[in-house]
Amino acid sequence: MTRPAVVLLSGGLDSATCLAMARRDGFAPYAMSFDYGQRHNAELAAARRVAQALGAVEHRVVKIDLAAFGGSALTDANIAVPESGVEADVIPVTYVPARNTILLSYALAWAEVLGGHDIYIGVNAVDYSGYPDCRPEYISAFQTMARLATKVGVEGASITVHTPLIRLTKAEIIQAGIALGVDYGLTVTCYQASETGEACGKCDACRLRAAGFAQAGVPDPTPYRAA
Amino acid sequence: MTRPAVVLLSGGLDSATCLAMARRDGFAPYAMSFDYGQRHNAELAAARRVAQALGAVEHRVVKIDLAAFGGSALTDANIAVPESGVEADVIPVTYVPARNTILLSYALAWAEVLGGHDIYIGVNAVDYSGYPDCRPEYISAFQTMARLATKVGVEGASITVHTPLIRLTKAEIIQAGIALGVDYGLTVTCYQASETGEACGKCDACRLRAAGFAQAGVPDPTPYRAA
Repeated sequence: MTRPAVVLLSGGLDSATCLAMARRDGFAPYAMSFDYGQRHNAELAAARRVAQALGAVEHRVVKIDLAAFGGSALTDANIAVPESGVEADVIPVTYVPARNTILLSYALAWAEVLGGHDIYIGVNAVDYSGYPDCRPEYISAFQTMARLATKVGVEGASITVHTPLIRLTKAEIIQAGIALGVDYGLTVTCYQASETGEACGKCDACRLRAAGFAQAGVPDPTPYRAA
Repeated sequence: MTRPAVVLLSGGLDSATCLAMARRDGFAPYAMSFDYGQRHNAELAAARRVAQALGAVEHRVVKIDLAAFGGSALTDANIAVPESGVEADVIPVTYVPARNTILLSYALAWAEVLGGHDIYIGVNAVDYSGYPDCRPEYISAFQTMARLATKVGVEGASITVHTPLIRLTKAEIIQAGIALGVDYGLTVTCYQASETGEACGKCDACRLRAAGFAQAGVPDPTPYRAA
């Protein structure tokens, strides 16, 4: 029987690549997305398209309530989304408190119910160096905690949080995904995409993504809206 | 300024005691409860009463979707709640996969937004020895992970998960709580309490609680329903 792996799937470029990699690694991928009070739903629509296109065994969307805490431009309507670039060594205002910890905890719960020991998350320590919960030492500490937290861990299994993108540049991620048949036209990265998935072309996420396609030497399939 | 601490508050005996202890320790307590598809709401009503009675600065109820995973008698209507006692060295069917990890992750997010470094959770390694996520080594691993996960941790602060009940018997918890003025008549422990908070007197939780009052030599204030 193919072993299950829970893949965190946002609908963006990185997590779509991760899903394709989980399949390549021989896992039966179970995709998990979160409805956490995003400002738009284009992201979740993209996650559904990607899960289907890349053959997820199942796709679950879990409603969570990050917006209740505020504290991030992505969930708090009172903080503006920056368009001015990422400053080095500063934690960006788009950082959501404890976000990856919450998402990985849900993935861990589903993995345990499925009898699985594997989770994929598309964190990247190159482009998102300012986010504490995208660093390898954080992922490693989560694995240690996860093994102690769970029935499968107590019974002797390791829990592995796979982070195949962690050291890749955006261009390398795109090249790897294209080799695995990922259709990036299905993905949405923009922090302020329209309901139908058109990107603004201005926010940090759009700029990183566009630069990635340019550096990869691959045509950018992103639908941009008129200025 | 009094430092904030997030206190996980279920509405049961243990977490009410924890809230009183957070105040005793000099923290401004912020109580956090979860609406996770419990079979009844008596527990959340109890949490509201306890938060108010013990002077929580704020009480938030976060909706979470544990029931989507199934896998536990507490959230899955297809698994019967046991009435036959806890077997030693066996993980009980009332174990919810990754439950404390998910709850602590939310507490961590709120602590970070509040600028706090402290979380209280009423886990107990004596009565709940079968739950992997009630053990000291799990809590310690969560703290390590939490420090790496967060802005406050990266800036140099430790995150402390306080578990003042972890080595106490139920009778000792009750004695400590009474000394701090906890009114246990406000709390609900029963897995299948009525809407108004009357306990069944038969489930594992009821039996552990009743034995605690007996051993503490304290009258049991629990409202039991007629058989």
